[in-house]
Amino acid sequence: MQVPIITVNGQACENVSALDRGLLYGDGLFETMAVRDGSIRFLEEHLRRLQTGCQVLGLEGLDHDTLTQEVAQAIDSDQECIIKVIITRGAGERGYRPVRQALTRIVQKFPRPVFPQAYEDPGIDVTLCKFRLSHQPRLAQIKHLNRLEQVLARNEWEDEYQEGLVCDTQDHVIEATASNVFFETNGGLVTPDLSQCGVAGILREQIIDYCHRHHIELSVRALRLAETADMDAMFVCNCIIGIWPVKRFDSLRFSRSELTRKLMSVFNS
Amino acid sequence: MQVPIITVNGQACENVSALDRGLLYGDGLFETMAVRDGSIRFLEEHLRRLQTGCQVLGLEGLDHDTLTQEVAQAIDSDQECIIKVIITRGAGERGYRPVRQALTRIVQKFPRPVFPQAYEDPGIDVTLCKFRLSHQPRLAQIKHLNRLEQVLARNEWEDEYQEGLVCDTQDHVIEATASNVFFETNGGLVTPDLSQCGVAGILREQIIDYCHRHHIELSVRALRLAETADMDAMFVCNCIIGIWPVKRFDSLRFSRSELTRKLMSVFNS
Repeated sequence: MQVPIITVNGQACENVSALDRGLLYGDGLFETMAVRDGSIRFLEEHLRRLQTGCQVLGLEGLDHDTLTQEVAQAIDSDQECIIKVIITRGAGERGYRPVRQALTRIVQKFPRPVFPQAYEDPGIDVTLCKFRLSHQPRLAQIKHLNRLEQVLARNEWEDEYQEGLVCDTQDHVIEATASNVFFETNGGLVTPDLSQCGVAGILREQIIDYCHRHHIELSVRALRLAETADMDAMFVCNCIIGIWPVKRFDSLRFSRSELTRKLMSVFNS
Repeated sequence: MQVPIITVNGQACENVSALDRGLLYGDGLFETMAVRDGSIRFLEEHLRRLQTGCQVLGLEGLDHDTLTQEVAQAIDSDQECIIKVIITRGAGERGYRPVRQALTRIVQKFPRPVFPQAYEDPGIDVTLCKFRLSHQPRLAQIKHLNRLEQVLARNEWEDEYQEGLVCDTQDHVIEATASNVFFETNGGLVTPDLSQCGVAGILREQIIDYCHRHHIELSVRALRLAETADMDAMFVCNCIIGIWPVKRFDSLRFSRSELTRKLMSVFNS
């Protein structure tokens, strides 16, 4: 499978209306999900975040059963792939005003990407992005389609790094361009508070839950960029890559810790 | 003409690829232009803002001649209509990273909307939106496709008002949901500084230029919401509606001033 397989509202189709509000305004949401052994990992969690996003944007009428069915049809007999779901407010009249109308459901299937083994051991190189995220609590955490901030941050390097760390306008670490970030200090973990900006990744939530269940100290808090110099280890994570330890963050060098190794054994399948 | 006429990359087509980055990330720009007497008003200014937007987003390869030609073909023999142009980074690989590739050009033609005469005299009713704009200087002023902030602000009322005033997170007035805003005080005009957020509207620029040329006092500055209570008059503007005086802004009542009347005679054709 080289070319993605796409359905729009359940029909095999590679196009959407040029009047779709997803295109006009980024008026919608998406989820990118990993299929392993023929099933989506964390499907319920993805659907729950999608539901939260619908509430934030006031998108009404998403039929989870239909969507789940379309996702299953897209997976077909594939054991390993990526399923991306996009939900938009649909095509409507000109103007920002959202009128209640049928949502657009887009399901896309991509091959599972293959990454070098070195990204897991010894780890990846990360740079600090100059681009800063704005504070918008109303849109924080959900996975909406307004992603120009991520595009501009990702545009700062080519292949020299595997990820870029992004701060907000007040020098707080928030996330990486396409993943969440954790630091280890004094045997516990710290991950940035995302109440003002950033995407609340599904794997981030899973790791937080795991730490709570296993009595691993974890703090979700505002984290100043200057603090990173005192951290013992660093890793990034999302549902597609799993956990990648960071071996270098610009001038800082990190070793892969026992705790990171433990979490990788749980979450990197 | 009831249904919009649409071309994509010069071909009659109502759809775009479901892999277009305009849909996936809002990775693009748009312009909404008024056609009067068969020609686009302020075409050069619209193209210049588009060019600025391309530079900000790093969109390369927009052919202005081809675009201008496609716009002219869309207008055809229509004397009055609206032309909307959307430029996106095109369809590419999965992921935020922008790879240089062919841009997508979308040209849409809509009928000219008809507004009640009362919007010009005595004017419109405006409410304050609870939604606050975030500070993102890197994306301020250009007309990009990440418009969820405007959608959420516009979602706060139905038909009770004709516009909503939007502030930033620090109680500065910035703009209205789909237009710029001017206030009159002591015989001169004030319009908000847009260095942190907001769209630099073409008609706003025209009005600023006109004031400079005609020695009308005009200040572009940070404007606190509390200051609006001391203003003598208020109007909103964009290229489609022209200038609409505001007769009521929530509990504040404004009269249409001589200066507003003068500007309307120049810019409302």
